[in-house]
Amino acid sequence: MIRVGIVGATGYTALELLNILLRHPEVKVTQLTSRDESCPPLSAVHPGLRERLDLNFSPLEIDTFSAQVDCAFCCLPHAASAEIVSQLLAKGMKIVDFSADYRLNDVETFETWYQVRHPDAQRVGKIAYGIPELFRDQIKIAQLVANPGCFPSSALIPLAPLLKKSLIKASPIIVDSKTGVSGAGRTPNLKFHFPECNESVTAYGMGTHRHMPEIDQIVRRFSGVNISTTFTPHLIPMDRGILSTIYLQPQSGITTEHLFAELSEFYSDEPFVRVTGQIPTTKDVAHTNFCDISVGQCRDMTVIVSVLDNLIKGASGAAVQNFNVMFGLPETLGLL
Amino acid sequence: MIRVGIVGATGYTALELLNILLRHPEVKVTQLTSRDESCPPLSAVHPGLRERLDLNFSPLEIDTFSAQVDCAFCCLPHAASAEIVSQLLAKGMKIVDFSADYRLNDVETFETWYQVRHPDAQRVGKIAYGIPELFRDQIKIAQLVANPGCFPSSALIPLAPLLKKSLIKASPIIVDSKTGVSGAGRTPNLKFHFPECNESVTAYGMGTHRHMPEIDQIVRRFSGVNISTTFTPHLIPMDRGILSTIYLQPQSGITTEHLFAELSEFYSDEPFVRVTGQIPTTKDVAHTNFCDISVGQCRDMTVIVSVLDNLIKGASGAAVQNFNVMFGLPETLGLL
Amino acid sequence: MIRVGIVGATGYTALELLNILLRHPEVKVTQLTSRDESCPPLSAVHPGLRERLDLNFSPLEIDTFSAQVDCAFCCLPHAASAEIVSQLLAKGMKIVDFSADYRLNDVETFETWYQVRHPDAQRVGKIAYGIPELFRDQIKIAQLVANPGCFPSSALIPLAPLLKKSLIKASPIIVDSKTGVSGAGRTPNLKFHFPECNESVTAYGMGTHRHMPEIDQIVRRFSGVNISTTFTPHLIPMDRGILSTIYLQPQSGITTEHLFAELSEFYSDEPFVRVTGQIPTTKDVAHTNFCDISVGQCRDMTVIVSVLDNLIKGASGAAVQNFNVMFGLPETLGLL
Amino acid sequence: MIRVGIVGATGYTALELLNILLRHPEVKVTQLTSRDESCPPLSAVHPGLRERLDLNFSPLEIDTFSAQVDCAFCCLPHAASAEIVSQLLAKGMKIVDFSADYRLNDVETFETWYQVRHPDAQRVGKIAYGIPELFRDQIKIAQLVANPGCFPSSALIPLAPLLKKSLIKASPIIVDSKTGVSGAGRTPNLKFHFPECNESVTAYGMGTHRHMPEIDQIVRRFSGVNISTTFTPHLIPMDRGILSTIYLQPQSGITTEHLFAELSEFYSDEPFVRVTGQIPTTKDVAHTNFCDISVGQCRDMTVIVSVLDNLIKGASGAAVQNFNVMFGLPETLGLL
Repeated sequence: MIRVGIVGATGYTALELLNILLRHPEVKVTQLTSRDESCPPLSAVHPGLRERLDLNFSPLEIDTFSAQVDCAFCCLPHAASAEIVSQLLAKGMKIVDFSADYRLNDVETFETWYQVRHPDAQRVGKIAYGIPELFRDQIKIAQLVANPGCFPSSALIPLAPLLKKSLIKASPIIVDSKTGVSGAGRTPNLKFHFPECNESVTAYGMGTHRHMPEIDQIVRRFSGVNISTTFTPHLIPMDRGILSTIYLQPQSGITTEHLFAELSEFYSDEPFVRVTGQIPTTKDVAHTNFCDISVGQCRDMTVIVSVLDNLIKGASGAAVQNFNVMFGLPETLGLL
Repeated sequence: MIRVGIVGATGYTALELLNILLRHPEVKVTQLTSRDESCPPLSAVHPGLRERLDLNFSPLEIDTFSAQVDCAFCCLPHAASAEIVSQLLAKGMKIVDFSADYRLNDVETFETWYQVRHPDAQRVGKIAYGIPELFRDQIKIAQLVANPGCFPSSALIPLAPLLKKSLIKASPIIVDSKTGVSGAGRTPNLKFHFPECNESVTAYGMGTHRHMPEIDQIVRRFSGVNISTTFTPHLIPMDRGILSTIYLQPQSGITTEHLFAELSEFYSDEPFVRVTGQIPTTKDVAHTNFCDISVGQCRDMTVIVSVLDNLIKGASGAAVQNFNVMFGLPETLGLL
Repeated sequence: MIRVGIVGATGYTALELLNILLRHPEVKVTQLTSRDESCPPLSAVHPGLRERLDLNFSPLEIDTFSAQVDCAFCCLPHAASAEIVSQLLAKGMKIVDFSADYRLNDVETFETWYQVRHPDAQRVGKIAYGIPELFRDQIKIAQLVANPGCFPSSALIPLAPLLKKSLIKASPIIVDSKTGVSGAGRTPNLKFHFPECNESVTAYGMGTHRHMPEIDQIVRRFSGVNISTTFTPHLIPMDRGILSTIYLQPQSGITTEHLFAELSEFYSDEPFVRVTGQIPTTKDVAHTNFCDISVGQCRDMTVIVSVLDNLIKGASGAAVQNFNVMFGLPETLGLL
Repeated sequence: MIRVGIVGATGYTALELLNILLRHPEVKVTQLTSRDESCPPLSAVHPGLRERLDLNFSPLEIDTFSAQVDCAFCCLPHAASAEIVSQLLAKGMKIVDFSADYRLNDVETFETWYQVRHPDAQRVGKIAYGIPELFRDQIKIAQLVANPGCFPSSALIPLAPLLKKSLIKASPIIVDSKTGVSGAGRTPNLKFHFPECNESVTAYGMGTHRHMPEIDQIVRRFSGVNISTTFTPHLIPMDRGILSTIYLQPQSGITTEHLFAELSEFYSDEPFVRVTGQIPTTKDVAHTNFCDISVGQCRDMTVIVSVLDNLIKGASGAAVQNFNVMFGLPETLGLL
């Protein structure tokens, strides 16, 4: 059994992670940390887990934690995460980091978008980006994996193979994303107060969302071109799910059918990406680690729709998939 | 008092219309027709209206109806509507038609998209299109007004003034719309069965939605150019509201700020269009006749967000606004 | 025109009140106060009201306020309210108070349930309770009206007439209420964070909800008996609406049909209470000032269902109805 | 591996069952039947299962089905089910029947409430009722198990142990239940059309719901007394979940604390029933096979709250739990 600890285990991604790990045959959860010094019992924070796991929250103590943990899932906010991650890495454990700290390859870009000094700048640019379908070889040998953002996953899984083969134009690439509210985390805020966002849709973060440089980076890596993607997220009155509608144009001579065929082929052996002839719904993939993709057309635009569960394929499911790859386990363990 | 009849009064737009008309100081509702021959009492069909209006449904009889009605609101499906409208027009009454029958100016386009012969083809192309902010002069003198589609209203109110002044490029113009479920009408269907569409988002009608030629027609009229807009609607788990995210590019030398200024100026005296510096939400305009518009930017794209209530500004509110214009009444009567 | 001011105008009941008052032909809103000293523009707090009312928030200054206001609607929390209300009453204006401060007739009961000293104890017990259908005569001549709680309104409107005529037994009387989330107010809190309460139902405040003594007091007043009602509220994933399912037993010799007949008769001339043969839904009365009531039976229990919109008949609509009564205006003004 | 077939596999309970069975290590799904003769592929009916199971729907042919199936889960409507079940039993296979056909012990009661002749009357009264926590011994040796109704499960799990020990009075026992819309099945119907039931609560089936005699039967079996429970279901705008609020009175000398202790003790070794000091929410148990129970008090009433997921512990999870018991497997297999 691999002993697993979760750092910062009070939020939604940690809850989802626990739900997956409790079904995982090779995992034993041994540590749950919280910055709340009252050390509440697990069921006080996550009532759905009552009687599931005999473990209380404890404050993070690096030595105790390291002695009991082979792999840490780190669910802290950006900057706070890298400070801890660097200490835990020194103890030799493997880590999947949910924060943005190691996703971007460039310290300056990170510091511009996140408005904070990076606490572990020397590691930036050397860390595997945790989309196994795209970076499995790096993840296999990694001690630390940067778990990707939920929006970037939904955009990059369909875009990367097409850009790699230069099948689509560099512009326009427009990603219009719709997300459930759990993507905003568990801290109360007027914007996510039920009567504010229920029965309502809005756009937000226009031109300023921090997932943009993350999308750009991978788009550029696969295309070799300095593409700047237009990305607009929208808040939808539902718990979970992301649907990204991606507008793009095939290169001359390439058709929408070619793009569909390329994606089908690229993902034919992947257990968690399904390229389909029907337009998928977020409900098709809710509570699963799947990313479903359709490829359609409207006028002169190819319109790709990709859906995933922001808490699973967009966060905790991807994290366990990365964990499985890092430990040489079957990639679907705990996830199917 | 103007005597009003509603033809086909069992659906959501009719219910909304009745809610508005019951507050309208110049209106008396005298006829409600339904194809259901059992002539149910109003409250059996619309329980929220119990004790509000002492009127039962009756089958439509042209003569009886005409004798009691000065203005008809016609809420029938396409093709069924034009058959009745042509008969009612002959009786001299004014009509606001909610169907698509008189929106398109070209019979062939209508018959291609709606796959049915037009029952009143000779009138096609001569009917005022019911967005008062754009076509008030024609509406003022019209006997028949074609009430616009909900998606076209949300797209055209922001686009028309910009196209008219040639401030934006003809391509790309992408309209990514999100709509509440009431837009699909009141007939039960698996797609709109609560557990299917709740907690889910999907795209639909990609490249085939019947509101596309309607958007095209007005876009072309204002621009003078043969533009084909890319339009993708999405179904959102909420009752009402449309948010359209519109991606476009200003003409060279024009900035996003210019576009905002132009829209602000164009709509400065309009009571129901509010151009705003905040990104609006559909909840801001729910249960109102407002269309709120913001103008933002992401990378090289201008991103306009427009919101309206699909049942009000997108249907019954616009219809009453048209009615007010047609009868020379203050345009906000019953609506503010 | 009656000049109206709203004290504490940032929450949901104030927003709803403004929506009603802006349609009220005899009202001019002249003052909006907030404890936020930055004095934000109205549309920053209530974006749906942009361009509707040219008025900013201001801090409450008793003299300025009194000079511009004939009637105040006071939307402050308990205890805070009575402190202001007593000062405003001294200026001679009429007041509808939304707080619980003047609802209970007994200072000790108030202080026990609300755990705070009453700042205006001498007035307690002399104030009209604002359900016009039950206390119209007192409201007519009142300078101050205590607007009732939303749950008490939904329980008392059906119960009071039956208790008055001794048609039902004193026990059991069980009120099982279901409420939308807006009833919890606008202050962010984990319990009302969208992903916590969406797709979920729970009971709360069991045996401890502060609306219990309010229900008791009126139940006892009408029955003359020392009844203690069992009341359990439940939180429902919707914006607005209360449905109370009331279980009770008729006195011997009385049938459920008698109870239905009595309620029908009692409310036959009331514009806002509809006794109906169908089980009503909260949607039937959403966005209206109606309270709909059905009377059914299951086994040896009579089961009364009452529905109302917690923000309207349960708060701001009732407040305007009270205002209309206090100023001798038609009771439905602004509300139908 | 146990070969499993699902009869009538197009609805929500079948989908949920498939989701569970695909994770079950001892099960291979070999047959899916539908009355739709077009034999659609699985993913056309349940798009979320695309690429999960290489099996199409087929019409039910008793011989083919029997040759490939060791255990059938029968998801047909009442009456239709018993006709098939009796034929499949003759082939020697084990069956979990989701319909009401074998739940009631009395043919006349069945025929009165379901208004249809029972097609397999001779078996009625001899079939194990599938709540393993209450009837495990019968289920162990059964060839056929009647899977219980969702509301009865939520009421009986808390009530049975208290009645068995005569700790509570026979009257009043009031079960006020709130259910998500998936409980109504997958057939489109105006009542469950999204814009009808979203943002609304209503009561239904008052005094007439078919789960009443089922509750009565077990209540009487455990109490030995002829109790008639008052039961009112309510429709809640959410996908899944039942919360039952149960009002009752302890026998003289018994306290609410005793009832809590008794339930805690009774269920202390059960893996799927959690008796808790917090009031549970339906979200705590969504997508799980748990039934969580709290015991509280309001005035002279004990108020028990029980929650479960109507599609899992209220249907398909319970069915797999029964299956595990019937085949001597660990009871939690596939379910934790």
